[in-house]
Amino acid sequence: DDRGENGDGEAYFKLSEKKRVTVRKFKNMILIDFREFFTNSDGDSNPTKKGIALQPEQWNKLKEFISDIDEEIENLK
Amino acid sequence: DDRGENGDGEAYFKLSEKKRVTVRKFKNMILIDFREFFTNSDGDSNPTKKGIALQPEQWNKLKEFISDIDEEIENLK
Repeated sequence: DDRGENGDGEAYFKLSEKKRVTVRKFKNMILIDFREFFTNSDGDSNPTKKGIALQPEQWNKLKEFISDIDEEIENLK
Repeated sequence: DDRGENGDGEAYFKLSEKKRVTVRKFKNMILIDFREFFTNSDGDSNPTKKGIALQPEQWNKLKEFISDIDEEIENLK
């Protein structure tokens, strides 16, 4: 499945084999964390430094930009 | 404004003062780059290592997950 729950009970959504969006609460702040993972020799997925965590306000901003971003993608095709 | 074009002529969208989504073509591959920037002493914005670049397929996946992510955010409020 493309969605799951990590060991901390946080919901994640897989964008690819290695990339996830995880929604968590940290210090009473909600974060939408876009991050790359690697699989260790035990087969466990571990987060890397490659990523960025958005706050809800920034996530909402992203949603507003979706059609503009889609347009840019089309322009580059 | 919250959108602009960088020195390489790539369109970007500001999610916050320091966070941007930039759409670019790199080695004939389209990338949707989520990244944190810092402002140097000259007032120029420079990218940091904090970020993740999505390919269009991963970006489309993200769009499919939006309502689920929104639901998770609501659950954590």
